[in-house]
Amino acid sequence: MMKIVKPTLLLDEERCKRNIKKIAEKAKANNVIFRPHFKTHQSKAIGKWFKNEGTVAITVSSLGMASYFADAGWKEITIAFPCNILQIDLINKLAKKVRLNLLVDNHEVIKLLNSQLSHAVNIYVEIDTGKGRTGVKADDKDLIIDLLTNIDGNKFTKVKGLYLHAGHSYECRNKESIMDVYQDSISHLAELKDLTKDKFPNFEICYGDTPTCSVIDKFENINALSPGNLVFYDLMQEQIGACTENDIAVAVACPVVSINKLKNQVCIYGGAIHFSKEALVVNGVPLYGKVVKLTKKGWSPILKDCNVTGLSQEHGLVSMTDNEMGKLKVGDVLGVLPVHSCLTAECLGEYLTLNGRFLDHYSKKKHA
Amino acid sequence: MMKIVKPTLLLDEERCKRNIKKIAEKAKANNVIFRPHFKTHQSKAIGKWFKNEGTVAITVSSLGMASYFADAGWKEITIAFPCNILQIDLINKLAKKVRLNLLVDNHEVIKLLNSQLSHAVNIYVEIDTGKGRTGVKADDKDLIIDLLTNIDGNKFTKVKGLYLHAGHSYECRNKESIMDVYQDSISHLAELKDLTKDKFPNFEICYGDTPTCSVIDKFENINALSPGNLVFYDLMQEQIGACTENDIAVAVACPVVSINKLKNQVCIYGGAIHFSKEALVVNGVPLYGKVVKLTKKGWSPILKDCNVTGLSQEHGLVSMTDNEMGKLKVGDVLGVLPVHSCLTAECLGEYLTLNGRFLDHYSKKKHA
Repeated sequence: MMKIVKPTLLLDEERCKRNIKKIAEKAKANNVIFRPHFKTHQSKAIGKWFKNEGTVAITVSSLGMASYFADAGWKEITIAFPCNILQIDLINKLAKKVRLNLLVDNHEVIKLLNSQLSHAVNIYVEIDTGKGRTGVKADDKDLIIDLLTNIDGNKFTKVKGLYLHAGHSYECRNKESIMDVYQDSISHLAELKDLTKDKFPNFEICYGDTPTCSVIDKFENINALSPGNLVFYDLMQEQIGACTENDIAVAVACPVVSINKLKNQVCIYGGAIHFSKEALVVNGVPLYGKVVKLTKKGWSPILKDCNVTGLSQEHGLVSMTDNEMGKLKVGDVLGVLPVHSCLTAECLGEYLTLNGRFLDHYSKKKHA
Repeated sequence: MMKIVKPTLLLDEERCKRNIKKIAEKAKANNVIFRPHFKTHQSKAIGKWFKNEGTVAITVSSLGMASYFADAGWKEITIAFPCNILQIDLINKLAKKVRLNLLVDNHEVIKLLNSQLSHAVNIYVEIDTGKGRTGVKADDKDLIIDLLTNIDGNKFTKVKGLYLHAGHSYECRNKESIMDVYQDSISHLAELKDLTKDKFPNFEICYGDTPTCSVIDKFENINALSPGNLVFYDLMQEQIGACTENDIAVAVACPVVSINKLKNQVCIYGGAIHFSKEALVVNGVPLYGKVVKLTKKGWSPILKDCNVTGLSQEHGLVSMTDNEMGKLKVGDVLGVLPVHSCLTAECLGEYLTLNGRFLDHYSKKKHA
């Protein structure tokens, strides 16, 4: 591996490609369109690995990110975020260039779109089956039908279907509870499909959260999948039960800058601006990462009881065991598996593969 | 104000300059060197405002940040982070160009520096009076004297003095408890000064955390101050009692993209990649920001009981009152005072002043 001197996001290309292949094949086996969410990796280079598995349509979380991937040649892009009408200029620019799918959950935006669009867009009505973030509640059938009818009646807006991010699966801690969330969600979707199938024959139901897409093998009443995080996975997904630690494809390499032997505590160069501040709470204590040893080929299994217990702007505090502590010295480099890989990748702004290639990230933040 | 279409970090130049002037004058009145920490703003443009108040020496949190400010003409720079020996090439490059002050808390780094430095650097021994992050414990006098003696005996390392970030003041919630932290810290420093004054006549004690520097007027046994956050302040400092909301000089402008009238909940375009995920815990519930109305001249006082209660990657969830809810529509822009302005500025990567000028940030992240 290359010489690491500052916090650096390492990418295990092999694991990442394995993760991509697995979900692309699952989508194919279920005969559903694969619309992977690119907000996790935000990288043109990694996007190509999806293309190599047959992906033709993608999902992103902002119009800026859509522009970045449109520039890379992607022709069908869903913005899986409530339509931000204030960026209508960018919406029109993109709608001219690619097949653009937007999400709405209210009449006001449809009205504003109709008066301001200059090119056709496809619209998903966003549905909420329990996450409670955005979207129309799944049992508010009248509003859903009204919205679809409204979209259908206008010159530049076409009905695409329903979009659902069952994000409450993130509260789960095992496969059974993820399946419960999924079963509940698709029972709502089945009803909605029945209600709409005659009027909207090309109707699509797009579904996608990483826990569900990881543990469910057979999808019903769904036409497309759009998970994101599973390209890398992370400690949160491992805690949920969506992956094992061997599926986690990124680690942050962090120099050791200070060692406190009395407290078995190490300070690493790697803080909130490198990891973001997402925490797991384990036994009532926040945990910001787990420690691995860097090896010639990547990194070791997680070192038991060696955890990142605090993050300030650039400092990370790591609690180590006696045994690991004895081997450490200032100037060593530790690996840290992140709690939330999407945010960590955003913070670090580029990837270093295990064979020494740098891959770009949309945020292009270079300083780390 | 300019038309805002995406999450944008607004900077109230007047408040910011007032904050700078206040602490610069306090340093002058105490006859101590002012070494402001630039990790909060990370902006060449804002750095000039300090220069206009007579600042000649600055503090930063990384070698990369030091290079950025060295390029802007700053000639004396402290890296207030445990010396990262792996970046020795950058240390030597900077040491050739500017008066470089480094922090150490262990013998190993001094040894490595001595074998790898090609230009002289000044060294502070970092002292810990209770924060427990890095630094030698203040009562470990033998180690402190040993480190100073070791530094003094080498060709390229000169003793600068002691550096103390009394970060445990962040646990305080009123002026009295901040003063307790300060009194305890300086009683340690007084002892250490006595022990060292004969051997190191130009010895400097540099102290600096925003809570202390905000509430203490008269400093004893201290030769330099290096607070950072007080250039902007934020909700955390307001909770600590270091500032009032009228001192907070930044707010994030966020488009409203979805409104849930039944829950009095609004979704804004503004998430973890814009704010970072620092939270205050208020009545057991995490709070990621407080809402203000944008006005022609800046922003209103905080809207009572209107809080950011959740952040995902790009979504912010805001809990609103009935009264404020009634006035809102999709396409409006809300202001949000951040919990931790250092991290929010890092995330957003540029500033928009209230009179419409964009100011750069070292992270240069443009996409938001």
